[in-house]
Amino acid sequence: MTAWTLAQRAAQMNPSVIREILKVTEKPGIISLAGGLPSPQTFPIDAFAQAAARVLADEGAAALQYAASEGHAPLRQAVADLLPWDVDPEQVLITTGSQQALDLVAKVLIDEGSRVLVETPTYLGALQAFAPMQPQVVAVDSDDDGIVVEDLAAKVGTGADQARFLYVLPNFQNPTGRTMTEARRQQLAERAAELDLPLVEDNPYGDLWFDQPPPKPLTARNPEGSIYMGSFSKVLAPGLRLGFLVAPRHIYPKLLQAKQAADLHTPSFNQRLVTEVMKDGFLERHVPGIRQLYKRQCEAMLAALDEHLRPLGVSWNRPAGGMFLWLRLPEGMSALELLPRAVEHNVAFVPGAAFYAQDGDPRTLRLSFVTASEAQIRTGIAALAAAIRQTA
Amino acid sequence: MTAWTLAQRAAQMNPSVIREILKVTEKPGIISLAGGLPSPQTFPIDAFAQAAARVLADEGAAALQYAASEGHAPLRQAVADLLPWDVDPEQVLITTGSQQALDLVAKVLIDEGSRVLVETPTYLGALQAFAPMQPQVVAVDSDDDGIVVEDLAAKVGTGADQARFLYVLPNFQNPTGRTMTEARRQQLAERAAELDLPLVEDNPYGDLWFDQPPPKPLTARNPEGSIYMGSFSKVLAPGLRLGFLVAPRHIYPKLLQAKQAADLHTPSFNQRLVTEVMKDGFLERHVPGIRQLYKRQCEAMLAALDEHLRPLGVSWNRPAGGMFLWLRLPEGMSALELLPRAVEHNVAFVPGAAFYAQDGDPRTLRLSFVTASEAQIRTGIAALAAAIRQTA
Repeated sequence: MTAWTLAQRAAQMNPSVIREILKVTEKPGIISLAGGLPSPQTFPIDAFAQAAARVLADEGAAALQYAASEGHAPLRQAVADLLPWDVDPEQVLITTGSQQALDLVAKVLIDEGSRVLVETPTYLGALQAFAPMQPQVVAVDSDDDGIVVEDLAAKVGTGADQARFLYVLPNFQNPTGRTMTEARRQQLAERAAELDLPLVEDNPYGDLWFDQPPPKPLTARNPEGSIYMGSFSKVLAPGLRLGFLVAPRHIYPKLLQAKQAADLHTPSFNQRLVTEVMKDGFLERHVPGIRQLYKRQCEAMLAALDEHLRPLGVSWNRPAGGMFLWLRLPEGMSALELLPRAVEHNVAFVPGAAFYAQDGDPRTLRLSFVTASEAQIRTGIAALAAAIRQTA
Repeated sequence: MTAWTLAQRAAQMNPSVIREILKVTEKPGIISLAGGLPSPQTFPIDAFAQAAARVLADEGAAALQYAASEGHAPLRQAVADLLPWDVDPEQVLITTGSQQALDLVAKVLIDEGSRVLVETPTYLGALQAFAPMQPQVVAVDSDDDGIVVEDLAAKVGTGADQARFLYVLPNFQNPTGRTMTEARRQQLAERAAELDLPLVEDNPYGDLWFDQPPPKPLTARNPEGSIYMGSFSKVLAPGLRLGFLVAPRHIYPKLLQAKQAADLHTPSFNQRLVTEVMKDGFLERHVPGIRQLYKRQCEAMLAALDEHLRPLGVSWNRPAGGMFLWLRLPEGMSALELLPRAVEHNVAFVPGAAFYAQDGDPRTLRLSFVTASEAQIRTGIAALAAAIRQTA
């Protein structure tokens, strides 16, 4: 037997809690409110079929060939055009999902022991992407409006321990569904500039608003102090793994080199497919349907929560968009302990503790309202209530 | 201006020499023998068009949805079936090109300062993938048959400095085109086992043999002591970014976790597309055509070299497959200095120095015989001769 020696960072890599939970939820008949899978109803399958035929007929050889690490030029232009501030397409890097953007940022900005600030709670996939570079992740206090700006000074560190960046997901956050208000964004942008704190802004859900678009991105307020990340996973389809980042000019070449080393380039076929689908304002016609569907499903979940969980002392928020909402169980209860009971009742969720960099609140849990139908949501929430009653 | 602090590894990231050269070769009219772009003639565009239509019609929602990080089960099975030793599909991890497999291996096996052994010369993309984890890369002596096994003991290191692995590309190597003989493989497999040295075997070109298949992989001789990497880029199309690795059972979970953090999963659409295309033994009908084309183009290059470069004192090898051959200029010449002269004569190549972990041989250069046509190859080699005559 050959004796393999693993890197120290490998010891810190653990199976994703969510992933392990999703395995359990593959049990037939279970209603999963756990995963963040967009509703397949929203996938424009016909548009992709037409685009695939066109791309392969008109530019098949180029679509199947190696391509530039930066990404397909017309797609970079389309991304720049979509963003609500002045973006040079030369600053757009196409990534293999926005998850890869997190991996690249980690490689370029994190040394072992580097301080990195995150929200409380924060996106689990970001913690996983940062972990291999072995940062010291510090959670900044957060409330219903996002980052508590007053806590930044205490957390930012000094000298060599100065935080490399603050990772922030201002719109319909994963996991909480909360959105930073305009006032809070303005405060944060100002304070970050004062503290010389770069921002890494992740915006996969920003287009999924119910009644009105969220305030403009933090990056739009200080592009030279921010890296911005976006995704086509929620407005078109996640299975293509297409995301992007926008970076300041002097950071971009390093991210590009990390990208090249990571997978040479994002699949050229997928980039051309999405460029083709997006032509002629497709997203403007397509995305409103997703918003309506998710709003309806969110309302169904809120109504079911009011009916079944209000009497049990559970509290939750009312998201203004996105895919998730955030529950808090009554004192003394644990979401992790509730889960197996819930699965017995044929419903699944994600315990909130996984999303905290430090000191997870064991009473919290995340529910997704986008994968299950309205009827399933009603059944699922009733089942969750039954599981809570049994546990309490 | 926000003061960004880059990770120390970022200082070591440099633009790829090949990439910069390829930019130069985008000049119209230039014949590029530089890049490793498969001939677009070999892309089965019609088969992909039919497969895309079928996949989107029959399993569109699944193809466009998030998917398991391990990869699409039927594709993992197909990979296991293709490999010439007993592979459990559970040990197959689908990657976003085999470049990503290198990135994952680096994350899981390399600590800062870890010793990593490579061939002399070696694949530049591997050096780039390993670099962010800051290894100490040590070149093992190599000859026309690959790794010189006698040099391993001197290079493997002891105690904490014991090499984490030897990275080896036994078939039609990039950049040299050389192939390890059966005798050398046997020696290497035995010596590696004695030295407790894990192997990372990269095999993107193994199917591109001209007259007979190469000897069986190193991994087949010691699967528990090896990680094996393969790719669909050369037998189907690189633009889909589909590769895979096969790992020992106790290493696999860490590679999987690194994969999940890197990009969640490889595009599900691409995985299903290739699974569909490969049905009913497609590769057995398709790949022989690629072999014939590349053999013809290699012979055209060898004939042109005999005609134009033999009289100039240049030497080269005769590959038995793959995409590249390796030239050595007469004493006193430098491939790097020759390049701008060659570009003036409308031909490009890659100087060999970029492929050495240490002490690059400035007289070497890599030629690709797969991208340019036979006529272009003849013109290109004549132009190269003119540039050499002018420089010498």
